[in-house]
Amino acid sequence: MALVVAKFGGSSVASPERIRLVANKLIALKNAGNDVVAVVSAMGKTTDELISLSETLTKNPPAREMDRLMSTGEQVSMSLMAMELEERGYRSMSFTGEQAGLYTDSRHLSAKITDIKPVRLMEAVLQGFIPVVAGFQGIDPKGDITTLGRGGSDATAVAIAYGIHADECAIYSDVDGIYTADPRVAPRAHKLDAINYDDMLELSSSGAGVLQARAVEFARKYNVVIHARSTFSDDPGTLVEGADAIMMEQAEVTGIAHDASEVKVTLRGVSDKTGVAAKLFSALAGNNVNVDMIIQNVSTDGRADITFTCPKADLPAAREVVENMLQKVSAHDYFVDESIAKVSIVGTGMKSSPGVAAKAFKALADNNVNIQMISTSPIRLSVVVSKDQMALAVRCLHTAFGLDSDSDYEEKMLSAEELAAKSKKGR
Amino acid sequence: MALVVAKFGGSSVASPERIRLVANKLIALKNAGNDVVAVVSAMGKTTDELISLSETLTKNPPAREMDRLMSTGEQVSMSLMAMELEERGYRSMSFTGEQAGLYTDSRHLSAKITDIKPVRLMEAVLQGFIPVVAGFQGIDPKGDITTLGRGGSDATAVAIAYGIHADECAIYSDVDGIYTADPRVAPRAHKLDAINYDDMLELSSSGAGVLQARAVEFARKYNVVIHARSTFSDDPGTLVEGADAIMMEQAEVTGIAHDASEVKVTLRGVSDKTGVAAKLFSALAGNNVNVDMIIQNVSTDGRADITFTCPKADLPAAREVVENMLQKVSAHDYFVDESIAKVSIVGTGMKSSPGVAAKAFKALADNNVNIQMISTSPIRLSVVVSKDQMALAVRCLHTAFGLDSDSDYEEKMLSAEELAAKSKKGR
Repeated sequence: MALVVAKFGGSSVASPERIRLVANKLIALKNAGNDVVAVVSAMGKTTDELISLSETLTKNPPAREMDRLMSTGEQVSMSLMAMELEERGYRSMSFTGEQAGLYTDSRHLSAKITDIKPVRLMEAVLQGFIPVVAGFQGIDPKGDITTLGRGGSDATAVAIAYGIHADECAIYSDVDGIYTADPRVAPRAHKLDAINYDDMLELSSSGAGVLQARAVEFARKYNVVIHARSTFSDDPGTLVEGADAIMMEQAEVTGIAHDASEVKVTLRGVSDKTGVAAKLFSALAGNNVNVDMIIQNVSTDGRADITFTCPKADLPAAREVVENMLQKVSAHDYFVDESIAKVSIVGTGMKSSPGVAAKAFKALADNNVNIQMISTSPIRLSVVVSKDQMALAVRCLHTAFGLDSDSDYEEKMLSAEELAAKSKKGR
Repeated sequence: MALVVAKFGGSSVASPERIRLVANKLIALKNAGNDVVAVVSAMGKTTDELISLSETLTKNPPAREMDRLMSTGEQVSMSLMAMELEERGYRSMSFTGEQAGLYTDSRHLSAKITDIKPVRLMEAVLQGFIPVVAGFQGIDPKGDITTLGRGGSDATAVAIAYGIHADECAIYSDVDGIYTADPRVAPRAHKLDAINYDDMLELSSSGAGVLQARAVEFARKYNVVIHARSTFSDDPGTLVEGADAIMMEQAEVTGIAHDASEVKVTLRGVSDKTGVAAKLFSALAGNNVNVDMIIQNVSTDGRADITFTCPKADLPAAREVVENMLQKVSAHDYFVDESIAKVSIVGTGMKSSPGVAAKAFKALADNNVNIQMISTSPIRLSVVVSKDQMALAVRCLHTAFGLDSDSDYEEKMLSAEELAAKSKKGR
């Protein structure tokens, strides 16, 4: 008997049939003696359809209006979910972000949660209702609807779990937990029973699509236990919690993440003077380009090559800046490589294990994987490789760090493009 | 230079192209020096689609959840309209019912407006914005979204016009004003420049679909001038206002309305005892059947026939009651006639003109129109006729009361079924 927040993403509520399936889950939780609060995303592709509709009118919609438009998606799915629960004989009520007490700042399209006061929600729980909360949305000090940006519904679930002192925040999706690597790439990957916040955060930030980094960050800050599990199975998933709660010995490496959604931009023959890099990267930041990795190679003639990676979506903005900067930094030219992938090994255990980098580089070299860029943090090592070597890199690192499971089930291997398409996670 | 509320129905905002057209209207009003507040319905068939979606899950959705579901329709159109205005260089903001200060009771699906406090709306107007308000919705004392039922968006517009002391509440639709009869039925009908609230209310209640009776009632109560006009033309439409504001001599009859949406139910051989009719009609009321006209013919053997009309939509509920009552009122049997139509002549001038009924009956008799039922009010006379005589009845009454226009333009005559389908007005 516990108080559980259960969050379901867009694909879990994409149709009336799926809504019934989710209702089954909620009812099972309730019948097992739990108090349950559901959080839902918009049905399937609804948000994309609303965005397309706005694009027929304007390329620059006011952010305030976009928030009001998009927030209708969750409002539809919450009502339908509450109806289905009532139809099945369970008392249910839906709550908008505002009614759930989810307060945010006024930064439309990517509002930050500033406070959570789920008074009505808690009242409903105490009266035996299964409240259904619209994910992704909140209310600003002016009383205007805001949305929380990418991963917003996960953040809603975690915030509410914190606000009502839930025992667990279950985040349901079409995968059944956190794996040591994406099983579609590394067939010998295995599911983790538990993972600590720091490792999960690095995995999420490095391309693992199961949980959004933002929600994990929030959970870590407020010590909310996340249970990442499958909508389509009753098996337990993976608990994401504090390192002190995890009773097993820490492995050197917890998991391998990959990310094929970035591109690499190289400026050649840049004048090797102080301040040149600063000029370039502040211009990129000013144009909202999220630069990830950077390297600079000094060449013999006093000129350097500067290379950086950024999300594919930011490429047009990056080109704009780079083309404008070429002359100012006296660069010869620039080129873009869209066929790259980042592969990261993550583990808080790395801090106390010297030689992780050496072991990784050796594994990659033994498999003829060419490393284009490297970046590190105390608990992560990332390398950029050619996209067609991505799967090989993930698999050989997975083996090298002893993560392979004993069972040798086979699964269809996907191409890098299919993976890139699949790894785009909604909210 | 005036303060104008401009309301556009679902067909006026059914597509991005139509939204642009409505924006033209709003911009023209603004450029002419007016302050403008727009009120919009949901796009086209959106509300019907949302209702269908809910029906895939349940036949008895909780009213609270239906309101939350349906209210998203207006939230989408208000955001898109505000975006379009901003795109065209005009400052605009959208407002939900709650933000517009439209307070209602908690009767979900058909909430009554209890208060209007459009503070934020007025602020926006004073700052030069064109606010766009979601029609059809309000907020109850618990902070839950409510909807106003059929004709709700017209009611929103009138309430806001009252709340901000607007000079005019323009209600745009696909017809260009109030006619002496439906021109599709009576080609010689002409547009009225003005009509008083009482006449308009009787016409609306008797089947004229241009304005919803509820909005007219609200306008009469708070003395708001409604301007019924066309979205697709710049010609002035019809002003609906107090009788004292209309400077012309009052005609005997203002207009002829028809309504093909009712059915007739007859119980034969009912025991002619006191209280039998009361028993029947209180049972019908208890089952939410909106009975319109009633007649009782006493036959020679101490038994009576009781006939009543009600909306076609209420027929299943009416059958349920009648079948259950047959024995209790010792009736022989009952039958239903779905091929009827009600034709009404309306005019406050009737009060001071004796002989209106006689003139009407003579006109109908001269044209061999058989009268099945009659009902009257001080300013209205309604007759039930066979549906295939409806158009003839409207036309001969229109001629008899001197309403025919001089121009004899021709227009396609529609069948009774087409008319019935067309006369269903949304919100």
